[in-house]
Amino acid sequence: MRNSPIGIFDSGIGGLTIVNAIKSILPNENFIYFGDTKHLPYGEKSKESIQNFSKQIIDFLIKQKCKIIIIACNSASSVTYEKPSLLKNTKIEILNVIDPILLEIKKININCSIGVIGTKATIQSGIYDKKIKALCVNAKVHTLATPLLAPMIEEGFINEKISDTIIQKYLSNPKLKNIDHLILACTHYPLIYKEIKKYYEGNVTVVDSAYIIARYVQKKLAISNLLKNTAYKENRFYVSNYTKSFKKSAKFFFQEDINLEEVCLNV
Amino acid sequence: MRNSPIGIFDSGIGGLTIVNAIKSILPNENFIYFGDTKHLPYGEKSKESIQNFSKQIIDFLIKQKCKIIIIACNSASSVTYEKPSLLKNTKIEILNVIDPILLEIKKININCSIGVIGTKATIQSGIYDKKIKALCVNAKVHTLATPLLAPMIEEGFINEKISDTIIQKYLSNPKLKNIDHLILACTHYPLIYKEIKKYYEGNVTVVDSAYIIARYVQKKLAISNLLKNTAYKENRFYVSNYTKSFKKSAKFFFQEDINLEEVCLNV
Repeated sequence: MRNSPIGIFDSGIGGLTIVNAIKSILPNENFIYFGDTKHLPYGEKSKESIQNFSKQIIDFLIKQKCKIIIIACNSASSVTYEKPSLLKNTKIEILNVIDPILLEIKKININCSIGVIGTKATIQSGIYDKKIKALCVNAKVHTLATPLLAPMIEEGFINEKISDTIIQKYLSNPKLKNIDHLILACTHYPLIYKEIKKYYEGNVTVVDSAYIIARYVQKKLAISNLLKNTAYKENRFYVSNYTKSFKKSAKFFFQEDINLEEVCLNV
Repeated sequence: MRNSPIGIFDSGIGGLTIVNAIKSILPNENFIYFGDTKHLPYGEKSKESIQNFSKQIIDFLIKQKCKIIIIACNSASSVTYEKPSLLKNTKIEILNVIDPILLEIKKININCSIGVIGTKATIQSGIYDKKIKALCVNAKVHTLATPLLAPMIEEGFINEKISDTIIQKYLSNPKLKNIDHLILACTHYPLIYKEIKKYYEGNVTVVDSAYIIARYVQKKLAISNLLKNTAYKENRFYVSNYTKSFKKSAKFFFQEDINLEEVCLNV
């Protein structure tokens, strides 16, 4: 079991930032990645639709004999919170990308003001707001949907005038005024982490979610004695809708040629 | 039959620009609009997926007894070109948004240089390139995929620094250097028609696709004696995935409260 792959899914390329962060601290691990490109982006879809998509993908990854599954998408993570049955009846652990961030937040001064940015689905679910307030009673939470950031990143507009203008527009929103910490509640956003950090000029702590999640996964695997101990490498990539641009992005992230297969799920 | 509604579909709100243009010249007409928001945006999806989505929606609109159907999406129009069987076996006419533009192009000087911008699906289909060259042998066609424009418009970033920066970035691409005419090959783009026109300062003719398509529909209905002759109004809106933001956009376009219903198609 410990030499089985880590299953990980997202609507598109965002989850690859998480794979990358895990790879950097656990270079031996193998991955089975599923990008639900047929339904990309999840951020604009309804709760029920995202729950259905997630259920099908989790079933698929279980059949692929993954030792652990990571829902590497905040939109999917936030809506599965409301339907815990999705994550039951399996012998393996299914992790979301919200719990690790919340554990990190717990370490922060409880009187601070925390900003959260993410897709419409994530922000409208209210999950960060509710969970952070439950953890830190005196914390002030300010959430903002920033739906153009994910397609901007998917299009490769990073470190240039367009990303600069869009980031500036969103982060200057009065809702995020006077925050002490900013949570990047979308797995695409680690790709613009440096730009966001630059915008704040050190006045706001930007929470680097990818590495927090990676360390959480490492801990979970270690506790269950599931850390891989062979050097044999075999990563597999699946999408629900084959497109050249996904392949290009996955190659960019993995810095190696990848084998990408289209799979039809019943959704 | 002449008092039956016009059926029209798109992946999201883009097709509403076409409904708006038709309404302005044919104020008596009723519409049944279908927004395939579950699969939005089409621009990044594969040809086969878009063909499947379109087939299901066309069947649905036929069952609603529409007198004519308009595929108000360039991505869907371009891929149905390659599968004409999609449009057969029906007693009603199914129009795409490409043919009216091509007829307009035919009137243009054949030695000119024509630029085309649209989604990845539309541009990769090569349909504009192929069809324009067949119509005007000496025309030079320069196409460019501009995938961030549709989500930018869906997000409401129009007439401001963000749209200005993104439009500037795309239109200054060397591929579009020295063009005489620019075709907006996406039904979202009429919403940034003025900004694009401003960018070119009168040096390039920007083809206003919404009104060209509307006049084409008017002509088709007139020829078939299908123009509505009563003032009874009843518009219906369907989406494959209910979201508040679609309702908001549809209300904005129609300037009236709308009744929006979610429909599950078997795709």
